[in-house]
Amino acid sequence: MSKNFCVIMGGGVGSRFWPMSRTKLPKQFLDFFGTGRSLLQMTFDRFNSIIPTENIFIVTNQLYLDLVKEQLPLLKENQILLEPQRRNTAPCIAWASYHIKSLEPEANIVVSPADHLILNNAEFSDSIRKGLDFVSRNNVLLTLGIKPNHPETGYGYIQIDDEQKEGFMKVKTFTEKPNLELAKVFVESGEFLWNSGIFIWNVNSILNAFKEFQPEIHTRFENGKSYYNTSSEMTFINENFPACPNISIDFGVMEKASNVFVHGVAFGWSDLGTWGALYDLSEKDADNNVSLKCKTLAYESHNNIISTPSNHLVVIQGLENYVIAEDNNVLLICKKEEEQRIRNFATDVKVNYGDEFI
Amino acid sequence: MSKNFCVIMGGGVGSRFWPMSRTKLPKQFLDFFGTGRSLLQMTFDRFNSIIPTENIFIVTNQLYLDLVKEQLPLLKENQILLEPQRRNTAPCIAWASYHIKSLEPEANIVVSPADHLILNNAEFSDSIRKGLDFVSRNNVLLTLGIKPNHPETGYGYIQIDDEQKEGFMKVKTFTEKPNLELAKVFVESGEFLWNSGIFIWNVNSILNAFKEFQPEIHTRFENGKSYYNTSSEMTFINENFPACPNISIDFGVMEKASNVFVHGVAFGWSDLGTWGALYDLSEKDADNNVSLKCKTLAYESHNNIISTPSNHLVVIQGLENYVIAEDNNVLLICKKEEEQRIRNFATDVKVNYGDEFI
Repeated sequence: MSKNFCVIMGGGVGSRFWPMSRTKLPKQFLDFFGTGRSLLQMTFDRFNSIIPTENIFIVTNQLYLDLVKEQLPLLKENQILLEPQRRNTAPCIAWASYHIKSLEPEANIVVSPADHLILNNAEFSDSIRKGLDFVSRNNVLLTLGIKPNHPETGYGYIQIDDEQKEGFMKVKTFTEKPNLELAKVFVESGEFLWNSGIFIWNVNSILNAFKEFQPEIHTRFENGKSYYNTSSEMTFINENFPACPNISIDFGVMEKASNVFVHGVAFGWSDLGTWGALYDLSEKDADNNVSLKCKTLAYESHNNIISTPSNHLVVIQGLENYVIAEDNNVLLICKKEEEQRIRNFATDVKVNYGDEFI
Repeated sequence: MSKNFCVIMGGGVGSRFWPMSRTKLPKQFLDFFGTGRSLLQMTFDRFNSIIPTENIFIVTNQLYLDLVKEQLPLLKENQILLEPQRRNTAPCIAWASYHIKSLEPEANIVVSPADHLILNNAEFSDSIRKGLDFVSRNNVLLTLGIKPNHPETGYGYIQIDDEQKEGFMKVKTFTEKPNLELAKVFVESGEFLWNSGIFIWNVNSILNAFKEFQPEIHTRFENGKSYYNTSSEMTFINENFPACPNISIDFGVMEKASNVFVHGVAFGWSDLGTWGALYDLSEKDADNNVSLKCKTLAYESHNNIISTPSNHLVVIQGLENYVIAEDNNVLLICKKEEEQRIRNFATDVKVNYGDEFI
C-alpha cells in the first residue's frame, strides 16, 4: 500500500472574488474557466494521478460537505474532514496529520490549497513525486517555491540559502508580501521564490515541528490519539478544534523551523488570489481585455477583465482597467487597482442588504 | 355616443433602450419604473379616463398582438390594428383614421405614442379635453407642444406664430433636432416648444390633409373604404399597407399643412427616448446616481444611471457618467454621452451573436 497521502485544504470563502465567489459557493467550487471542472476538481485530478484515491483527504467547512460530495464523488465520506470552525491552516494541518498517521504511521503527505491554478500538470506531478521521495528519506519540511516571472506584490517570497540537499535548496527566510520596489530587488537577485503554500513532508517530521513550535496545538491533537479514525473522532474534534489558536502554518511552523527546504519549480502557477491575478494569466484580446466564459463586445475599452455566466453577453464602451463581474444577481464594476477593496464592498453589502448577496 | 377617439401607436422597437428594450419585448411594454404598469398601460390608463374604452385603438406590429392583449385586457381584439410591416407614422395614422371614420364619420381623434412618460395626468387630461373640443369645431391639425425647461438637443422644436385662435397658437415651422447652441437660442426666445408627437384633429381634417399632401397614401386607403370594419379589412391592409411609402406624419403632413396649431403645455413630459432622458427626469441620490428598481452601492461614482432587474444588486466603483443596464442576460456599460451609439452596438451584437440578445 502506498505511503503517499494528500491533504487538500478547501474551506476558504474566497471573498476577494466576490461576487463570483459566494459564501454558499466559494471560489474552489467554481468552474472558473468554463472547462467543466472546478478548481477543487482540477486540484483533485492532479493528485489523483499520482496518489491513490483512498489516500486523498479534503479538509473543509461543514457548510461545504454537500458540495464536496457532489464535486468529488470518488471520495468516501471518511475522506472529508469537516472543520467545525475556521482556524487557519496550522490546526487544519495538525488534525489531518494525526488523522493520516493513525492510518499510516510512516505517511508522506503533500498539503495543497484547493483553489490554485496550475497550467503544467506533468511538471507539477514530477515535482510532487520527487518531493515525496525526498521527504520519505529526510526529516525536512519541503515547500514548493515558484520561480518568479515578474515582481508580484501579492505573494509572499522565500529566500533560498546556498546549502542544498539532493538538489533541494535550504530556506533562509520567509518574507511577507513586499512592495513593488522590494519585489523588483527580490526577482533580480535570483535568490527569491514565490511561496506557493504547497507543502510536502513525512507525517513524523511535521508532527515533531508542531511539538517544537506549536506545543498547544500539538498537545491538543496528541490527546485525541485514540479517537482518530474511530466513531468518536468528530466528537473529539468538535470539542477541541475550535479551541485551537487561529494561526497559519507559515507563521506558526515554517518560519520557525530550521529544517525547511524548497523545491524551485515553474509549472505555470497562480494562487488566483485576485481578479488581477486572474487577468494577468488569462488570454487577452487585441485590446488586452479578458473575457471569462461570456460573449463580449468592447468599444474604446482596454485592460478589463469581464466575468459573467457563459450564456450572457456583455457590451462595454469607454472602460479602462476595470473588473466587471456578474453572478447570481450581483454585478460588480470596480477599477482593477482597487480590487483589494472588494472584500470591503461585500461587507458593506452585507450590512446594507443582508446575506442574500454575499 | 362619444365622438372622441384615441389612437395609440405602439409598434416601435425602442432600440435606443437596448438591452432593456428587446425586439420581443420593446420599451412600451416594459414596467420602466417598477410601478407595476408598463408605459403602454400608463398611456392607456390616461386616455381611458377621458375617452370611452371602446373608442381606444392600438396600432402595433403583428409581433406584439399577444403582449397587447395581455397588458390591455379591456381592449377587444378589433381595437388592435396590426400593421403587417413597419411604415412609420403616416400610413399608420391614415389607416387608423379611415378605420375610425367608418365607425364615426365625425370622429375627433387624439393620436399618441405608447411609450412616453407624463407626470401630471390631471393637466394632461385637461389639455386633451380642450384640444378635442377645439378640433371638433375647427378644421385644424392640433399638436401638443411642451414648454421647454432646458435646451434639449434630442427633441424637434415647434416655432409658434403670433396668430392665435381660442388660445391655441398657430405653428410657424417645425424644426429638426438642433445643436446645443441653437437649442439655447430656441429656449431663450420663448417662441419654441418641444414637439411631443401627440396630435389631435377631426378625422375629416386629417384625411383632407392626407389628400392634399400625401395623395398616394390617401388614394390607397380611400380605395379600401368598403372594407374597413368588415372581415375583409385585414386582407385589404395586408395587400396595401406594405406598399405605402415609409414616411412620418411630421414630415409627410404637419410640416406641409397651413392649418396647424399647437397647444403649449407643461405636464411633465418626456419621450423617454434615451437613457439620458430617463436619467434627467429620475430622482438622483447624493452623488447624482440614478438607480432604477435595483439595489445599488456606489463608491467614487457620480452621474450614472443604473438599471437592472429589481432583485439584483449592483456595486460600482470609480465610474462617472455611465449607463449601466442589464436585462435578460445582456449587460451594457457605456458612457452616457455615447448613448446614441447603443443602436449600433445592438446591430453589432446581432451580426456577431445572432438574434438571441436583441
